[in-house]
Amino acid sequence: MTTTAHNSTASDQGSKGPITDAEIFEAHEGGKLSAELTSPLQTQRDLSIAYTPGVAKVCTAIKDEPQLARTHTWTGRLVAVISDGSAVLGLGDIGPAASLPVMEGKCALFKSFSGLNAIPIVLDTNDTDEIVETIVRMAPTFGAINLEDISAPRCFEIEDRVKEALDIPVMHDDQHGTAVVVLAALTNALRVVKKSFESVRVVVSGAGAAGVAVVKILADAGVNDIVVLDSKGVVESGRSDLTETKQFLAESTNPRGIAGGIGGALDGADAFIGVSGGTIDEAHLANMADDAIIFALSNPNPEVAPDVAAKYATVVATGRSDFPNQINNVLAFPGIFRGALDADANEITDDMKLVAARAIADLVGDDLEPGYIVPGALDSRVAPAVAEAVEKSALEAMAKR
Amino acid sequence: MTTTAHNSTASDQGSKGPITDAEIFEAHEGGKLSAELTSPLQTQRDLSIAYTPGVAKVCTAIKDEPQLARTHTWTGRLVAVISDGSAVLGLGDIGPAASLPVMEGKCALFKSFSGLNAIPIVLDTNDTDEIVETIVRMAPTFGAINLEDISAPRCFEIEDRVKEALDIPVMHDDQHGTAVVVLAALTNALRVVKKSFESVRVVVSGAGAAGVAVVKILADAGVNDIVVLDSKGVVESGRSDLTETKQFLAESTNPRGIAGGIGGALDGADAFIGVSGGTIDEAHLANMADDAIIFALSNPNPEVAPDVAAKYATVVATGRSDFPNQINNVLAFPGIFRGALDADANEITDDMKLVAARAIADLVGDDLEPGYIVPGALDSRVAPAVAEAVEKSALEAMAKR
Repeated sequence: MTTTAHNSTASDQGSKGPITDAEIFEAHEGGKLSAELTSPLQTQRDLSIAYTPGVAKVCTAIKDEPQLARTHTWTGRLVAVISDGSAVLGLGDIGPAASLPVMEGKCALFKSFSGLNAIPIVLDTNDTDEIVETIVRMAPTFGAINLEDISAPRCFEIEDRVKEALDIPVMHDDQHGTAVVVLAALTNALRVVKKSFESVRVVVSGAGAAGVAVVKILADAGVNDIVVLDSKGVVESGRSDLTETKQFLAESTNPRGIAGGIGGALDGADAFIGVSGGTIDEAHLANMADDAIIFALSNPNPEVAPDVAAKYATVVATGRSDFPNQINNVLAFPGIFRGALDADANEITDDMKLVAARAIADLVGDDLEPGYIVPGALDSRVAPAVAEAVEKSALEAMAKR
Repeated sequence: MTTTAHNSTASDQGSKGPITDAEIFEAHEGGKLSAELTSPLQTQRDLSIAYTPGVAKVCTAIKDEPQLARTHTWTGRLVAVISDGSAVLGLGDIGPAASLPVMEGKCALFKSFSGLNAIPIVLDTNDTDEIVETIVRMAPTFGAINLEDISAPRCFEIEDRVKEALDIPVMHDDQHGTAVVVLAALTNALRVVKKSFESVRVVVSGAGAAGVAVVKILADAGVNDIVVLDSKGVVESGRSDLTETKQFLAESTNPRGIAGGIGGALDGADAFIGVSGGTIDEAHLANMADDAIIFALSNPNPEVAPDVAAKYATVVATGRSDFPNQINNVLAFPGIFRGALDADANEITDDMKLVAARAIADLVGDDLEPGYIVPGALDSRVAPAVAEAVEKSALEAMAKR
């Protein structure tokens, strides 16, 4: 399995040599974002329009007709990227201040790929109630909310409660962004190996934020046989150590009622999806079905090296940009939020996620091959295609009401 | 009193005719701010530096050395403009969403005059405890906090508690921005009429956010004889209807122990400062001292029209851009916050406010005349001069610790 033309961007990294620490710190000096004016304030007239006395007319109009805040302030295109810094990349609970560079980077991705404005908001609390009430209180500031890097299981309750409390799009990207791209990739991987969602056995390793969302979206997409593992083994009803979320997983997956470790789970499995942060023994992969699919998505170290995985699978994907088939959330979240805001949707629905995944998968088209199942992270066609599909889904749902 | 060359900007407004509603609403479409990247994300290498995996190095460095968040994220130059929308311009309690255009405008002024980044945060609560705890929880997001348009008396407690809880610059601009510019203007008005802070009698009409801060800064500057009025008359110890703040005013002002209405207060007064939102009867002005000073700062309608005031006073100022001597907060807040952030100060002190006022006043220099006591709102010399003075004050205070 070699780098193909579709992944040519990965070679950019090599052409200037490896990235150095000095280069990284220099690029971060002063931060990665700036707040700019959409039009300059140069004359007294400019001031009188943008500030007093002119601005009072717009304030009064919004007070009379609140929906005007969406068209006459920046909130209509503004996403808050909100984190408590409790589950940042592979770094874990590093706190709000240390998480800021990731949140700024995420905001930069929003702008680059979708044209939306995004600002980081980091919270100095890990308490679920406090996080929810803080977000709800400042909600009029934003048009949509991207929850980011909040640890499981708190992330599930926080997302549910914020969604319930607010009538703007809210999405925890570590869950649903990942799930959408995994579904897109699996859609095309199954096209490559000519298997159907309904017929395959899928093993998901990892029952955290990403794992839970992947399981849910695969079930929505029609996969009937999913087995989930956490660090203790197969998540199944016989275990007494399950959290509420894992009890839900135990009840809604594992139709063959298996128990034990990864070895048994992978026996005859068609697809392995790793979102665990752990590693997997090569020997277990040997018992997978013919034409197997392996997504080893842990970053920076995949559960299994792609060259090893390729010995046992027809399609291999990772989360890394230096291998083919990078499963990267950036394919999903910019377009999902852009489509939701373009439609003035008041939530991000399961259907919006499904159509987003389909839009990503369909862009690959006739170029589909084992080493090219998803578009590259820098493919500029992706966000507009996702946004269009999501907006359409939102408008159809609103039309039915 | 006529418009002088110093106020030439005011005529910009006339040259294109009066501002129309259509023009105002068009200028607000899509909002007045945008979040931009400080450098583009075009290649996989850019992504790997600004986002994963490179960004993890910066996160880890901040975790080990929190002060690096000030230099390697945008927070070191980021001001939050925070409001609950309870006392917006002359509009009153219009709520958070309707206040957004004002907050965006304020952020635009920050960028235009000081180069700082600023973002609006509006809160869907009027509860003092909730506002304080919400701001404290999201504080790691920002480098400084500008409280805006929060009604009295809650604004006093909110500012005090947020300042106490955080080690970053915090200032309620409706109080202190106004006070700084009033002090600058009074400094030069007294130079015009050749009177001293120590010798003059000053009447302040209005005991809200601005009035209280004006009284405090004038006392700090050496004014011994201040009489404050609210809507019921002179604020004095004999009254039984005083809030805690007004009791403080009663105890710290009114050295001659007068009582009653505006008429008695203005008898022999050297300066009238109106921050009341009300109007004043021309007859009362007739009994002011020779070479009187009248600052009629209510917006959009001054307590007394400038041409009427000029019959009884040598120096007249208003809050409006279409008359000479506009007392406008924009002369103060951009430079104050810029200076505080440049010094990496952990608070905005009373001394920083005094030196800011002096810097504004001193810029007028030899051009001083009754119709030019403060620089124009668009004078680009002001913010850098204020920032320099404030930074110097902050660094001196830190050196003494």
